[in-house]
Amino acid sequence: MSAQGITPRAEDYSQWYLDVIAAGELTDSAPVRGCMVIRPHGYAIWEAIQQDLDGRFKATGHQNAYFPLFIPQSFLSKEAEHVEGFAKECALVTHHRLRSAEGGGVEPDPEAKLEEPLVVRPTSETIIWHMYGKWINSWRDLPLLINQWANVVRWEMRTRPFLRTAEFLWQEGHTAHATTQEAEEEALRMLGVYSDFAHETLAIPVRPGVKSATERFAGAVETYTIEGMMQNGWALQAGTSHFLGQNFAKAFDVTFQNADGDLEHVWATSWGVSTRLVGAVIMTHSDDTGLVLPPKVAPIQVVLTPIWRKEKDKAEVMEFAQKVEEALKGRVRVHLDARDNMKPGAKYFEWERKGVPLRFEIGPRDVANNSVFCKKRIGGDKFGIVLDDGFADRVVSELDAIQDHLLAQATAHRDARTHEIDSYDAMKAQMDEEPGFYLVPWHDDDETEREIKDDCKATIRCFPLDCQDQAAGKTCFYSGRPATHMAIFARAY
Amino acid sequence: MSAQGITPRAEDYSQWYLDVIAAGELTDSAPVRGCMVIRPHGYAIWEAIQQDLDGRFKATGHQNAYFPLFIPQSFLSKEAEHVEGFAKECALVTHHRLRSAEGGGVEPDPEAKLEEPLVVRPTSETIIWHMYGKWINSWRDLPLLINQWANVVRWEMRTRPFLRTAEFLWQEGHTAHATTQEAEEEALRMLGVYSDFAHETLAIPVRPGVKSATERFAGAVETYTIEGMMQNGWALQAGTSHFLGQNFAKAFDVTFQNADGDLEHVWATSWGVSTRLVGAVIMTHSDDTGLVLPPKVAPIQVVLTPIWRKEKDKAEVMEFAQKVEEALKGRVRVHLDARDNMKPGAKYFEWERKGVPLRFEIGPRDVANNSVFCKKRIGGDKFGIVLDDGFADRVVSELDAIQDHLLAQATAHRDARTHEIDSYDAMKAQMDEEPGFYLVPWHDDDETEREIKDDCKATIRCFPLDCQDQAAGKTCFYSGRPATHMAIFARAY
Repeated sequence: MSAQGITPRAEDYSQWYLDVIAAGELTDSAPVRGCMVIRPHGYAIWEAIQQDLDGRFKATGHQNAYFPLFIPQSFLSKEAEHVEGFAKECALVTHHRLRSAEGGGVEPDPEAKLEEPLVVRPTSETIIWHMYGKWINSWRDLPLLINQWANVVRWEMRTRPFLRTAEFLWQEGHTAHATTQEAEEEALRMLGVYSDFAHETLAIPVRPGVKSATERFAGAVETYTIEGMMQNGWALQAGTSHFLGQNFAKAFDVTFQNADGDLEHVWATSWGVSTRLVGAVIMTHSDDTGLVLPPKVAPIQVVLTPIWRKEKDKAEVMEFAQKVEEALKGRVRVHLDARDNMKPGAKYFEWERKGVPLRFEIGPRDVANNSVFCKKRIGGDKFGIVLDDGFADRVVSELDAIQDHLLAQATAHRDARTHEIDSYDAMKAQMDEEPGFYLVPWHDDDETEREIKDDCKATIRCFPLDCQDQAAGKTCFYSGRPATHMAIFARAY
Repeated sequence: MSAQGITPRAEDYSQWYLDVIAAGELTDSAPVRGCMVIRPHGYAIWEAIQQDLDGRFKATGHQNAYFPLFIPQSFLSKEAEHVEGFAKECALVTHHRLRSAEGGGVEPDPEAKLEEPLVVRPTSETIIWHMYGKWINSWRDLPLLINQWANVVRWEMRTRPFLRTAEFLWQEGHTAHATTQEAEEEALRMLGVYSDFAHETLAIPVRPGVKSATERFAGAVETYTIEGMMQNGWALQAGTSHFLGQNFAKAFDVTFQNADGDLEHVWATSWGVSTRLVGAVIMTHSDDTGLVLPPKVAPIQVVLTPIWRKEKDKAEVMEFAQKVEEALKGRVRVHLDARDNMKPGAKYFEWERKGVPLRFEIGPRDVANNSVFCKKRIGGDKFGIVLDDGFADRVVSELDAIQDHLLAQATAHRDARTHEIDSYDAMKAQMDEEPGFYLVPWHDDDETEREIKDDCKATIRCFPLDCQDQAAGKTCFYSGRPATHMAIFARAY
C-alpha cells in the first residue's frame, strides 16, 4: 500500500486491487501456498451472493445435495478430456495418519499409505456421475436437477485473492436429462440465471456467449460463459455453463429406460460460479478510496455514526441513533457504529474502505432537526433525510438508485471500451493502450487463435449470443476467410 | 431392509436406522471409504439446521469467515495434546499433480511431491490461531467472535451415516478474549445456544454438562457438551463447546496489549455441531414406518396430494390444490405433489417415509366441502380443515402442536430411562436390558472410569450442570470415596 493506503488505479491497477482488498479487510494470505483466508467482511459478500443465487436455483427447480470431497484417482481418467484438463493441478491424498518423526515433529506414517490415492475434488462431475448411475434407471427419474455448494482445489501456480486461488468456494450444478434438447435448454437457462444475477445483483453488465473450442471445459460439448469487463479493460470470466452431451454418461455408463422401453445414455449439463465473483465486484465498482459495493451484496448497506463533542450530548444522540436503527431494521442491513474509543473521522475512513453504500452522520443538530445527514459512498454532496413515516422507503430508494447508478456506470464503461473493428492490425496496435472488448468477424480455427494469443496476448472470450447473425457475409479480421462467428477478443484474468 | 422395507426397531435398532435413512433417501454410500453422499432430502434437513443456528450465532455477535482446508503438517504438533488427539486419523496431501501411469490410468507424479505434507483439516484451531496472531494486537481487537461453516475430515475406521463419517459438514466457532472469565462465559453461552436450539428446533431434550478429563477435546481446559438420549437408551453427544484457556494462544504466541500496556496471552473458546445432528433427529423421533421430522427442520412441512378417479375431476381438484398451496405459501413449506404417473397410495407411502409432518388429501368431495382431509405423520385420525380465512393459522398451529408433541414424547422417554442409582452393581445388572442415563454420585478418577468402561461398556457422558450440588455428602457409586460430581453414565454412539 502507498502512504495513503491505496495505490491509485492509474499508477498500478494490480497493486490497487490488492490494496483495496487489504484496506477493506476482505482476505488475508494463508500459511498454505495459494490459499486465502476470507475475512468476515469478505465472507459476508459471498454469503449475500450465495443467498441470492440459491433462491434463483431453487426457483428453477434445483435441489442442493452434498458429494464427497475426495474422488478415487481412477475416476478422473474415465473421461478422456477431463483427465487432461485436471490431472495437472490437483491435490492428492496418499496417507491417512501421521506418526512422530525422529528429531521431533510429525511425518506421514508409511504404514498408513492408501491403496489408491484420492484426488481432492477440482470439480465433481466424475463422482456425481458415478452416483447418478445408481439413481437413474427410468425416464421417470429425469430430469435430475442438483446443485452443490462446496470447496474445490486446483493447484494453480500464479494466484490472486478471489480471482485465482488453490482452494476456492463455489457452487456446481449437475443435471441429467432424457434428451439433448432438454439438456441444451438447461445449459442456456442457467447461463441466463447467471447473467440476470450479474446484472441485477452484482451490477455487472456481463456479455453472455459461447466459448471457442480451445477454452471449452474439459469434457464439455459446448461451454457457455458470461464475461465481465473490469475497469482496466481486461475481461473476467464470471461464470460458465456446460452442455456435456453424453460424455460423462458414457464414461460412467449411466443409462435410462425411455418411454418405449429402450436404454439410452443420459444427457448432461454442469454450471458453476465461485468466490471469483467477489473479485469481479471489486474490480468493476471500486475506486481509489477503496471498496465500492452494490447495495444488494453489501453486508452493511447503511452505517450510522453518532457524533458528540460534549459528554452531555451522548445520551440523546445515541438514543436517536437507536431510533433510526429501529426504523430501518428489517428493510435494510443497518449497523450502528457505537464504538466510543474512535473519532468520527476514523470511522468514516474505515466504512468508506469497506464500501458501505450509505453513511448517516447523527449529531446533536440532527437530533434537533429529527433528521440524519447522509453521505453516499459513490460521491455527491451530503444531504439530510427527515425521520418521518416515509424514512425507510426513502432510504431503500436511495439504495436502489445507487444500485442502478453502478450498473449504468459499468455499462457505459463497457460500451465505451467495446471496439467493433475488422482488422487485426488495428486491434494489435490498440490493445496495449486501450485494452477492452474487441468485437470482430472471425473464421473459427484453433491454430490462428493460438497465433493471436502468442502475438498480442489476447484470447477469444466468447462468441456473444446476441450478435452471431452479424457474421454472415463478413470476412475474418485475421485470416480473410469467410467469417463463421462474431468473436470478442480481450486480455483476460 | 426387510420385505416391508424397514426393519422394526425392536428387532434390530442399528439396521432400523440404516433402513430409515435409505427409505427416506437421506444419504447414499460413496465410492470413498467412510464418506457419505448427502442426498437432497437429507441435505435440506441440514440446510434448515444451518439457517436456524446461523441466526442464533449472528444474534450473539458472531461473524462468519472461511479458513483454508489445508493445514501445514507442522502446525498440528504445536499444541502438544492436540496432535495426540488428531494425528492418528487425518488425511494427508503429499502431491500436487497426477501423471500417466505405465499400463494406463494415472498416478501421483513423483516430481510434484510437496516439501511439507498438508493435513486436511480435522478441525481448525491451529490455522485459525495462526491467523489470530496476525489480527490481534490490542485489547481493542477483542473479543474476536468468528464462526466457520465447513467440511472436515477425520479418518474414522468404523463409520455410520451422519453419526460418524470420514468427511462431515459442521460449523466451528473460534473466539478470542481478553480475560479467562469472558472466555468461560462465552463457552457456556454457546452451550446454551446449542441446548436451546436442540430443544426448540430439533425437539431433542439434551442434557448440558461438563465432560470428564478423559473425554475432553484435545487441547481444551474444559469441554462442555449436550447429550441426547436416543430411543434405544444410548447417548449421543450432539454438540460441544470448549474453554481452551491460553493453550492455543501460547502455542501460536498470540498476545495482546492490555489497557495498562502490558502484553498478555489471549483466552480462547471453540465450539461445534455437525451433520451428526441429522442422525440425532432420526434416532430421537422416527418410527417403524420411517422418518419422523420435527416441523421446524422438515424440508417439506405439508404435502398436498390431489386425488381423482375420473379424468373430468382432475382439473377442479388441481385448481383447488393450487389454491390451498397459495394459501400456505410464505407461512409453511408446502409441496404440491402433482405427479400423475403415481397412485395416491404410493405417494402417501413415499411422503411418510420422508417424514413430512402433515399430508393433505384433496379429492372431489374435499373440493365440494371447501376443505382438505388431513393426516398427521405422528398418527391419529384424519380430520378436515376448512379453507377459510383462518386456514393458514390453523395449519401453523397444527405444526406447532406436532413440534411440542415430539419434544414432550422425547422428554418423557428420556426421563423414564434416566435412573438415579447409587450402586455400581445395580447399573451393571441393568445396563444390558435397560440402557439409559445412569445418574450417579461419582468420585472423579480417570483410572476407575476406564475400569467401568472395560467392565460394562458405559462411559461418563457428562457431569450435568443442573445437579452438581447434589454430590455433596454422597459417596461414589463405584469406589465408595466421597463424591466429587454427579455423573451420567451411558452407552454411547
